[in-house]
Amino acid sequence: MKLWFTEYQTPDLGITLKVEKTYCSEQTEFQKLDLVETAEYGRMLVLDGAVQTTIKDEFVYHEMITHVPLFTHKNPKSVLIVGGGDGGVVREAIKHPSVEKVVLVEIDGKVVEVSKKYLPEISCALEDKKVEVVIDDGIKYVAEHKNQFDVIMVDSTDPVGPAVGLFAIDFYKSINECLREDGILVAQTESPFLNKDLIRNVYKDIKSVFPITRLYTCAIPTYPSGYWSFMMGSKKYDPIETDISKIPELDTKYYSAELHKAAFALPKLAAELVKG
Amino acid sequence: MKLWFTEYQTPDLGITLKVEKTYCSEQTEFQKLDLVETAEYGRMLVLDGAVQTTIKDEFVYHEMITHVPLFTHKNPKSVLIVGGGDGGVVREAIKHPSVEKVVLVEIDGKVVEVSKKYLPEISCALEDKKVEVVIDDGIKYVAEHKNQFDVIMVDSTDPVGPAVGLFAIDFYKSINECLREDGILVAQTESPFLNKDLIRNVYKDIKSVFPITRLYTCAIPTYPSGYWSFMMGSKKYDPIETDISKIPELDTKYYSAELHKAAFALPKLAAELVKG
Repeated sequence: MKLWFTEYQTPDLGITLKVEKTYCSEQTEFQKLDLVETAEYGRMLVLDGAVQTTIKDEFVYHEMITHVPLFTHKNPKSVLIVGGGDGGVVREAIKHPSVEKVVLVEIDGKVVEVSKKYLPEISCALEDKKVEVVIDDGIKYVAEHKNQFDVIMVDSTDPVGPAVGLFAIDFYKSINECLREDGILVAQTESPFLNKDLIRNVYKDIKSVFPITRLYTCAIPTYPSGYWSFMMGSKKYDPIETDISKIPELDTKYYSAELHKAAFALPKLAAELVKG
Repeated sequence: MKLWFTEYQTPDLGITLKVEKTYCSEQTEFQKLDLVETAEYGRMLVLDGAVQTTIKDEFVYHEMITHVPLFTHKNPKSVLIVGGGDGGVVREAIKHPSVEKVVLVEIDGKVVEVSKKYLPEISCALEDKKVEVVIDDGIKYVAEHKNQFDVIMVDSTDPVGPAVGLFAIDFYKSINECLREDGILVAQTESPFLNKDLIRNVYKDIKSVFPITRLYTCAIPTYPSGYWSFMMGSKKYDPIETDISKIPELDTKYYSAELHKAAFALPKLAAELVKG
């Protein structure tokens, strides 16, 4: 029997992947969770029917949400990750020698558990001594911690279900207070081809809270349209003014110093979403 | 009845699109040709089961294969397009005031005919007085014309069937002779995620013929992986040394002066394909 999983990324468009094995399929307290082996991209985590990460292309997302803000900040010591229970952002963050502490706040403990069991290449740093894993509501955690982090990454699912509150202006205000005086926020903001209104809205909201707001993009084959965006809100450092000659060679497969600024050079269709 | 078209981009991966109407479905002398209305991307041309172009995302490919070489060349007057019977590259090329002559050599006259009928937004410039459409074998045309063109774009299908000869070193040598002394070749070279060997081979071949060889990329949602590449072979001009301050504002939706150089800043996974 040939099994195919199809994610309908819009009502009229899907990605379809041959599935060789199902490791796990269950309803958690928050969402439907599936962990399967795909023939094309290896093991794949699916939440509420949407592809979250795969062994073969996870590096793009995890490197780009992590290294761009961490090399924009002059001396990041403390990092907070909201969501991201697979541990991929944690793995990238601890590659930075200046980083002393990484807190991961994931609302769904099952995601962490399943990732540790089935995605060791991604979750491998969750037991590191610099890392604290908190199973709790990220919105609550951020509200209860003031002036404590240098960089906060919002590694959320799509803006439906448990992640809705992570795309709201009140959350960005709360993050602003949770960050130190030169802190940086990065949030994943979906596809410039398919989620134009979302990007426009997040830009408007983050711009109303942070003095520097910038969109950057990368290519992620298993995400809708294959083209993905991140919004940065920064109190002090402008990513496009980073001295890239000082970025050290890092063990990455997508991110590079050369790409650090180039990722902010937007195609017109994306640039038009963040005007004004 | 709900109709879905699925392109299996690899044996284990597909894109699936809801189809609302079929305008044309026939076997030409060279390939299977389908022209359908998709709900997500509008009218779509499919050759031998592979998506060629859609109304909603065609601008990325056509702008990027055209404006990057035409703004790299100092004074392009004559342009040759091999393949590209839909006319999208022609439409973009004649936006350049310096361009006096555009020759399109398409092997399959049916592609031109169907594009004129069903894709007027793309084929609209095929009747322009600067444009000559030749229905013939591009390999033969190139071999028979020496020292005549400033820029040649190879707007081919995938390297199977009628397009195999367009990915061969002998063709690049022939193009080199067809170009003037400061001429530029650009060829579409598939996905850096899925077609690594092809990109490595084309780089090696073009580099053995042209003094300057550069890969650049862009995001195309309907192509495999959503991430696409183009290889440039240039006799004199280096695209990353283009004075982008001299690039005028153009009626584009993806390409911009800012992107002209940034498109050559490659993610590591792509940079590694064109080393040495």
